[in-house]
Amino acid sequence: MRKHLLPIALTCLLPVVSMAQQQDSLVLRQMADEVLRNSTAYENLRTLTKTVGGRLAGSPQMAKAEQWGVKALKAAGADTVYLQECMVPHWVRGEKEEARIVSKLRDFVPPLNILALGNSVGTGKAGLTAPVLEVASFEDLEAKKDQVKGKIVFYNYHFKPEFVKTFLSYRDAVIYRGQGASRAAKYGAVAIILRSMTHGAYNFPHTGGMSYDSAYPKIPAVAIGLQDADRLSSRLKKDNSAQVYLRTNCQMLKDTIGHNVIGEIRGSKYPDQFITVGGHLDSWDVNEGAHDDGAGCVQSIEALRTFKAMGLKPARTIRVVLFANEENGTRGGRKYAQLAKQRNEQHVFALESDAGGFAPRGFTSTMPADKKAKLLSWKPLLEPYGFYDLDGEGGGADIGHLHQALGTPMAELYPDTQRYFDVHHAANDVFEAVNKRELELGAMGMAGLIYLVDLYF
Amino acid sequence: MRKHLLPIALTCLLPVVSMAQQQDSLVLRQMADEVLRNSTAYENLRTLTKTVGGRLAGSPQMAKAEQWGVKALKAAGADTVYLQECMVPHWVRGEKEEARIVSKLRDFVPPLNILALGNSVGTGKAGLTAPVLEVASFEDLEAKKDQVKGKIVFYNYHFKPEFVKTFLSYRDAVIYRGQGASRAAKYGAVAIILRSMTHGAYNFPHTGGMSYDSAYPKIPAVAIGLQDADRLSSRLKKDNSAQVYLRTNCQMLKDTIGHNVIGEIRGSKYPDQFITVGGHLDSWDVNEGAHDDGAGCVQSIEALRTFKAMGLKPARTIRVVLFANEENGTRGGRKYAQLAKQRNEQHVFALESDAGGFAPRGFTSTMPADKKAKLLSWKPLLEPYGFYDLDGEGGGADIGHLHQALGTPMAELYPDTQRYFDVHHAANDVFEAVNKRELELGAMGMAGLIYLVDLYF
Repeated sequence: MRKHLLPIALTCLLPVVSMAQQQDSLVLRQMADEVLRNSTAYENLRTLTKTVGGRLAGSPQMAKAEQWGVKALKAAGADTVYLQECMVPHWVRGEKEEARIVSKLRDFVPPLNILALGNSVGTGKAGLTAPVLEVASFEDLEAKKDQVKGKIVFYNYHFKPEFVKTFLSYRDAVIYRGQGASRAAKYGAVAIILRSMTHGAYNFPHTGGMSYDSAYPKIPAVAIGLQDADRLSSRLKKDNSAQVYLRTNCQMLKDTIGHNVIGEIRGSKYPDQFITVGGHLDSWDVNEGAHDDGAGCVQSIEALRTFKAMGLKPARTIRVVLFANEENGTRGGRKYAQLAKQRNEQHVFALESDAGGFAPRGFTSTMPADKKAKLLSWKPLLEPYGFYDLDGEGGGADIGHLHQALGTPMAELYPDTQRYFDVHHAANDVFEAVNKRELELGAMGMAGLIYLVDLYF
Repeated sequence: MRKHLLPIALTCLLPVVSMAQQQDSLVLRQMADEVLRNSTAYENLRTLTKTVGGRLAGSPQMAKAEQWGVKALKAAGADTVYLQECMVPHWVRGEKEEARIVSKLRDFVPPLNILALGNSVGTGKAGLTAPVLEVASFEDLEAKKDQVKGKIVFYNYHFKPEFVKTFLSYRDAVIYRGQGASRAAKYGAVAIILRSMTHGAYNFPHTGGMSYDSAYPKIPAVAIGLQDADRLSSRLKKDNSAQVYLRTNCQMLKDTIGHNVIGEIRGSKYPDQFITVGGHLDSWDVNEGAHDDGAGCVQSIEALRTFKAMGLKPARTIRVVLFANEENGTRGGRKYAQLAKQRNEQHVFALESDAGGFAPRGFTSTMPADKKAKLLSWKPLLEPYGFYDLDGEGGGADIGHLHQALGTPMAELYPDTQRYFDVHHAANDVFEAVNKRELELGAMGMAGLIYLVDLYF
């Protein structure tokens, strides 16, 4: 496209708002200038993803990530930076995972692309070989329960394409990852294979946390890429002798020490009142944790940097928290909430970014009606930056614990969700999957929301 | 992110709308199902980009693209498919383009990554070597006009990052591409080099159409990648002997024959009233024309396919037009409008998609107030699919001619714009840059808008 267009002045950038909102509108525009003209958020993400990489709680990479966080928060101008200790689960993937179809046909079959689910037990070094029972759903499992014993249950539940808000597809399907192993173990299954939850057309398996019901034996659980899921399904239909050999060496070790990384701007009027803003520093081990949740970390740091760079002095203390362990335990968020309660801290607001560094569409939130009304009144200020949807209920997995402990009003950045499940928990969640401007607009809106909350909550 | 979530039913997918809108709401939801469950738009785009590739008006590839269009429209179920002949400009890039810094320092300097601007004359086979005058803007050019003679003018005008709607950055900067050559030639320049209009951080040069003012000599014009622009600028500051060698072999040949590719669903009540929906089939020669504008073509075809697949019988004739020549002439759009006027056709509405296949945010439009009021009343129906912004003024470059000739109400798909200028007119506008779901949601909204217009306009 070319278009015949005329030059325009930058002055037309300011949105049409009420007289009372004009000053705030100007501040938000300056925040946008500060963030969009500056590459700090993007370069921070590059360093985190490319020099640290994947960083599961308890891993050596996570210790490196904590040091990265301290450095980035100091560079952003935080008045204070410190670590908050907490115990975290220590799950390790172990050495080479593998899976393949074995069959009496003895034809060549390429290996299956799998990833053990987080928190899963392994098969042990010898691996296991068993016939496979494919089920389309839990209903299907129940119908076939007499056939389960001694088999690998293959949950071939399809991620739904119809939901426009793709987290609804996730909500619909994630129960198979969370509970699938124990529900199959109940009927004597020896392992499970889970069709990945993704819209992507390629073959990356998507891992993620699972848990066991203590009433049943713990059996190995792995995710499989879509193309391999289709291939396995097709093979099972035409080859009665087909079995699957599976080897995973993952194990859950004893809890270990982790840290929330915290940086603060001290409040100019009410230093003992807190506004929390954060993302989680941990990520799965198999990718760079770029969208999940390096993006949320660097956006939170960028919000703080924007305040400092503009010389804004918030009334309340703004506390950036890079949470220690969201993926397989939310222990960072739990510890933060527990200490806040123990210390009788006064928490005004908490904001999280953990839905990917995509172009913002709004904020979801959970707060009393009077606060929600204020939030909605800021729509004319936020919409010019893409934040048009402020209605939705929501909040983050980490700050949810603070909300639960103290009733703190909470919100979460709501980015466009179309591309999230292409990369979520898969090897392709890397720096290159994040667009600089989309990341920046999210950070800008977070800074703006904190600014408004600090003034009016 | 993991979230503790519960399974939900698909029934909650329907938006809250008035009683009167419930039936329409249901139809739009069915359209979304049809498009999101089906890969036709995406697979059509794959075929166009991967088997035809770049397709400048007048090129052999464009003839191949026309055949692709005929086939795709027939497969989508069009009642009639035909070609509409028009004359198109025939600009060819010619053989190898090259540029490098030459200097008395005789050190090794990597070549400069350039692309001739569309419609530009070439340097001829020998190329040209000249000193370079860097200017920051037209104001700067005027201030330095006495230094221009015999030199290559290097417009190092920076694409602004502050605009949230990135087409405003384009509008701000595109005048340098359009008029830069003649305004430099006026003072005796021998060629121009243009800093590319992009937010991308890499070194792809971005081409695009330019034109000459007949009052001045036609001089060669090329775009240069951002990293090379910075490198050239830095070299000029520290090396007085630095010149640039430039060779381009492009030329404008005689006009040749092209075609708009047209497919129709015949109106069930008013077959002589037309609703036009289209994108442009031509693209620049150096990429696959995926976002610009393969996306618009396959979305338009998908809108037609959706009507047919759902058995919807529109009252008016829906006419999908794949325009012959947008990039360097809009001759396809001109011809279409000219014939419509000549034949006294009654055009109810025209819709274009030519701003990339990104996640939709709304539609821009130009139409009388009563029609605009109707459009705005459909917001509750369209917003669940991401179309929240229906206020903006706009319309497409191709359908703009129809609007001008007949006053036809027009609208353009308004997708998210953050990533567009990473790929616009550059070698990386390829199939892989398009996200399947983002493309599909745009197509679904286009089908929905046509459905509503057909009922209520």
